[in-house]
Amino acid sequence: EINTERLLARIEALGRIGALPGGGCKRLALSAEDAAGRALVTGWFCDLELDVHTDVIGNCWAIRSGHKDLPPLVMGSHIDTVATGGLYDGVLGVLGGLEVIESVIDAVIETEHPLAVAFFTNEEGARFAPDMMGSGVSQGALDLEEMLAKVGIDGVSVADALDGIGARGREPVSALAPCAYLELHIEQGPVLEAEGTEIGVVTGVQGISWTEFAIAGRSAHAGTTPMALRQDAGAVAAGIAIEARAIARDFGSPQVATVGRMRFAPDIVNVVPEEAVLTVDLRHTDDAVLQAAETRLFDTAEALASDEGCTITRRSLARFEPVSFDPDLVGQIAEGAKRLGLSHRRMPSGAGHDAQMFAPNCPAAMIFVPSKDGISHNIHEYTAPHDLANGVRLLAEVALARAGV
Amino acid sequence: EINTERLLARIEALGRIGALPGGGCKRLALSAEDAAGRALVTGWFCDLELDVHTDVIGNCWAIRSGHKDLPPLVMGSHIDTVATGGLYDGVLGVLGGLEVIESVIDAVIETEHPLAVAFFTNEEGARFAPDMMGSGVSQGALDLEEMLAKVGIDGVSVADALDGIGARGREPVSALAPCAYLELHIEQGPVLEAEGTEIGVVTGVQGISWTEFAIAGRSAHAGTTPMALRQDAGAVAAGIAIEARAIARDFGSPQVATVGRMRFAPDIVNVVPEEAVLTVDLRHTDDAVLQAAETRLFDTAEALASDEGCTITRRSLARFEPVSFDPDLVGQIAEGAKRLGLSHRRMPSGAGHDAQMFAPNCPAAMIFVPSKDGISHNIHEYTAPHDLANGVRLLAEVALARAGV
Ligand SMILES: NC(=O)NCCC(=O)O
Ligand SMILES: NC(=O)NCCC(=O)O
Repeated sequence: EINTERLLARIEALGRIGALPGGGCKRLALSAEDAAGRALVTGWFCDLELDVHTDVIGNCWAIRSGHKDLPPLVMGSHIDTVATGGLYDGVLGVLGGLEVIESVIDAVIETEHPLAVAFFTNEEGARFAPDMMGSGVSQGALDLEEMLAKVGIDGVSVADALDGIGARGREPVSALAPCAYLELHIEQGPVLEAEGTEIGVVTGVQGISWTEFAIAGRSAHAGTTPMALRQDAGAVAAGIAIEARAIARDFGSPQVATVGRMRFAPDIVNVVPEEAVLTVDLRHTDDAVLQAAETRLFDTAEALASDEGCTITRRSLARFEPVSFDPDLVGQIAEGAKRLGLSHRRMPSGAGHDAQMFAPNCPAAMIFVPSKDGISHNIHEYTAPHDLANGVRLLAEVALARAGV
Repeated sequence: EINTERLLARIEALGRIGALPGGGCKRLALSAEDAAGRALVTGWFCDLELDVHTDVIGNCWAIRSGHKDLPPLVMGSHIDTVATGGLYDGVLGVLGGLEVIESVIDAVIETEHPLAVAFFTNEEGARFAPDMMGSGVSQGALDLEEMLAKVGIDGVSVADALDGIGARGREPVSALAPCAYLELHIEQGPVLEAEGTEIGVVTGVQGISWTEFAIAGRSAHAGTTPMALRQDAGAVAAGIAIEARAIARDFGSPQVATVGRMRFAPDIVNVVPEEAVLTVDLRHTDDAVLQAAETRLFDTAEALASDEGCTITRRSLARFEPVSFDPDLVGQIAEGAKRLGLSHRRMPSGAGHDAQMFAPNCPAAMIFVPSKDGISHNIHEYTAPHDLANGVRLLAEVALARAGV
């Protein structure tokens, strides 16, 4: 039996770090708030006398040893948030994993495989692109040196930010080699709530493509420059944003497209922008479709820029192919839900997750619980206590089955 | 005879204050650079033993007394720049006026009316909206207290910025009451150069409408939120930018429309923007057409926001009706150009100017000289020395005729 009160108290305590006035949290990766969050969570790891490790990109995991000298069953996720984040995204998977281990200790249960709980650096990608950076480096999908050199939205590099909060550990890349990886997470979308289903059995993660476009035009006077003589970088940026929308509309669900960032320079009312930078986030479950969306977006962007006499450059900030989770582990989650009497459905994940970085190296899978109004990356993100508890009970069920009692 | 070397040397000296790496200037209104520019120019005023005055909004003028106790003939413009400004916009009218006065002193000419040269606070509107703030307050078109309370792009009020550089003077509003106002300025557009005409005789200024739109949506996850459930403030902003362009296209020349500023929040790749702010600058020579453009823009903005489930508010940052300059003074400029053997044409101004604030109170008019490639509000803004000299010679010709020798 898990202790829901203890779980909720920990979620609340972590939510106070970086709390925003209207609710929710801002705990950007490797910020001072992230440092405080890491200290709180590793403190809980130490309270349980777990064996705590940190690797060279700041991923942290805590192991409770098993009967045998076997690779650990790892439960994990992340504790960084976006700038307008909620209390559950990532946190549930980490504190849920901790709750499983503490319950197992309380119940004096011994497992064959060690049980571990982990949190990974910069899953959100909100300060540093790409997202899933820590788990990607740990599992060999992303290059350590390349990631350490990435510069965030505030001009600070990952390497400097890591050292700035003392989060760079000694464990090498690939030190964490699970027998299986399980991630409990809030759905962050509307499906489970709308259907009244208690559990999402996640079959995989859709492909993610992040592109930054930088457009260079010519600053000019807003009052004296005839429309035909303009090289308006801002107008090209607006056109690309509209095209992203049109792609999502024309391709239809599950294609989504988002322009999250937009910046003009010199950013003055009566000056035609000479520079504009924007990002486009495209996602689809089918990589061929995602590639078609990218091609259309890139072609239109080039055409819009050229029509306006502007130059355009694009930079890939993140590109992850769709991932399918391990069918056996996915099946075990569905069976576990059935055993616990929880209604459930198979579904793909719309968001990227650390689990997808483990999928090529070991059996990996995920459990979703409902998100109120399908909202996430929003301070009003919410999942009801009974749903949180359902998720952790199922996580415990599958983890114990997999680790061997 | 005017001294072109002296004029060019002063333009260069002022251009070194706030000089940008690639050329051009950044001397935003009431900034430290503006303070240094003011000190340099008033130093030149003092060298000529002119009678220097500063008013409560920081407008500064210098008088050389005339024979008689009459209102002064004022030549003026501004020395503030946009963030990517050139060396001539505004500066030419101030240093040209100074050159006229110094040449008159050198030639030991006495005038009936005093001659004055003036520079006005925050003509550009780049830091604080509206533009033409100082001349507008001086001439009663804008309210002093309301303008002192305006907050700039950096969050500082006009009142604090004035005091921050010690630019608040003691002369009251309307202390400057010219018998006539003359402003020499670069065209900032492509007409004169394209035609090979030496002088623009400015008949008036087109109407200016600046609107800031603030759109409130809902932040949401870029990967998990179906397109149909989004309240994307950024998508609405992009739609408004596209509509501004469409209005300029559909209305045709001389309608222009510019989106100079654009900002998203939280400004993160994988978060649907919950907030977007943008500005639209609309201009037309006919106020009825300008009103029709505003109506279409406002209606479309409301419709786009409502379709997306967003709320939208708009704020007028500046609204000036078209202005016609004094026909007699305009005629005198055309005759002066003829006398000096300068090719000239009548034309409206696309840019706003301090002269338009004087037009309701005294005869006011303007002289344009060509802008290379029609570029302004750009670091590559340029007018050739002979064109600068032509403008100052014509300014002297008309000023002396009007002041009475
Ligand atoms: N789970 C989650 O919000 N991950 C952030 C990465 C992304 O999907 O953009
Ligand atoms: N002359 C000039 O550039 N004035 C700035 C005001 C405007 O036209 O926007």
